[in-house]
Amino acid sequence: MTGAGEAGTGPGARSGRGTLVVLEGGEASGKSTQARLLAERLDAVLTREPGGTALGERVRVLLLDPAVGPFDARTEALLVAAARAEHVVEVLEPALEAGRTVVSDRFTASSLAYQGYGRGLDVSHVECLNRWATAGLAPDLVILLDVPGDEARSRLRRSGRTLDRLESEEADFHERVAAGFRALARVETSRWVIVDGVGTVEEVAARVWAAYQTCEKGGERP
Amino acid sequence: MTGAGEAGTGPGARSGRGTLVVLEGGEASGKSTQARLLAERLDAVLTREPGGTALGERVRVLLLDPAVGPFDARTEALLVAAARAEHVVEVLEPALEAGRTVVSDRFTASSLAYQGYGRGLDVSHVECLNRWATAGLAPDLVILLDVPGDEARSRLRRSGRTLDRLESEEADFHERVAAGFRALARVETSRWVIVDGVGTVEEVAARVWAAYQTCEKGGERP
Repeated sequence: MTGAGEAGTGPGARSGRGTLVVLEGGEASGKSTQARLLAERLDAVLTREPGGTALGERVRVLLLDPAVGPFDARTEALLVAAARAEHVVEVLEPALEAGRTVVSDRFTASSLAYQGYGRGLDVSHVECLNRWATAGLAPDLVILLDVPGDEARSRLRRSGRTLDRLESEEADFHERVAAGFRALARVETSRWVIVDGVGTVEEVAARVWAAYQTCEKGGERP
Repeated sequence: MTGAGEAGTGPGARSGRGTLVVLEGGEASGKSTQARLLAERLDAVLTREPGGTALGERVRVLLLDPAVGPFDARTEALLVAAARAEHVVEVLEPALEAGRTVVSDRFTASSLAYQGYGRGLDVSHVECLNRWATAGLAPDLVILLDVPGDEARSRLRRSGRTLDRLESEEADFHERVAAGFRALARVETSRWVIVDGVGTVEEVAARVWAAYQTCEKGGERP
């Protein structure tokens, strides 16, 4: 609406509206680092889920605090969706309307992978819930950082910090989440790119950048 | 399952399973007081929404704190539904399975009235969301405490305390919520009873008790 300078660039851009690029992946896949680097390179709005708003960050604490819970899978899906609804209204839609590129560390697909494939909820129900929560907002590009389970666990061990509630889940859970992400990427090949997440930060960043550029065909270079 | 002493009593009781009685109504309708009195008289489990669980009480703080928000109507509906999902799994289902009578201060209808009729979300979407959140659990009896808007506002003023985020909403919002509750009661006449909430605590308690007993036909007296 406001016709900002970079309007019309990036994958899937529509007349003046910005583009939404989402980094997805399991725990310790390097998403947060790569989201930050990509956002810097694109001069994009950087945000994350769960979080991105005052309410969302409070929900994040509830979700990740090992002292709260365990709670039901539906509760978890609804809490994440609540934070997401607010994120869409407060952050994503205003930025996209203003023609900005937005890089989000996780979005709807994380719910399908974690609460659907990981926790065993019906994936189509989780999808329906999120379609309502987001008022139908879908990303223009999803970059999945794929890291083998052994490598992710070894990264978490090396980090030496206390693990949050999701990071502390058993290996089987994380394998189901990873398989879920890959299944989603296979279904939506036009919007998803799988990037090998093993390597140095710089190596992976180069792959993420190449994936972004490849998917940009048809739009102007940023 | 455990066949507690009062199994099979109350409205809608099914072989050994307890009954769920819900008190609904707007702000300052006297629900909480009447729920407590009814639960004492029935030796029932007393619980409330949003709340009833550790997670639910934390969500309640987010919902009612005037310093948090305002947030989107969908966010509000999803947060309430998250607390409700946990309430069903941790409190309501185990108590009902054990044959207990449960008195809850608010349940699903509050979402239909507040986020549907009050905030203007599509009521059928809110209903669908809640059917999923509760895994289809429906109350056996809903007692609606009906109090005119003027009376409710005057009670809030007389209380002298700081109003929470929902209590502080404008009169129009509360009128829509009240009209929504009445509309729900008209549709589900077999499970809903409207009780006049104007009068002393004892007068209203007598009406609530009479409504409970009237709806009990077919079950044993508690």
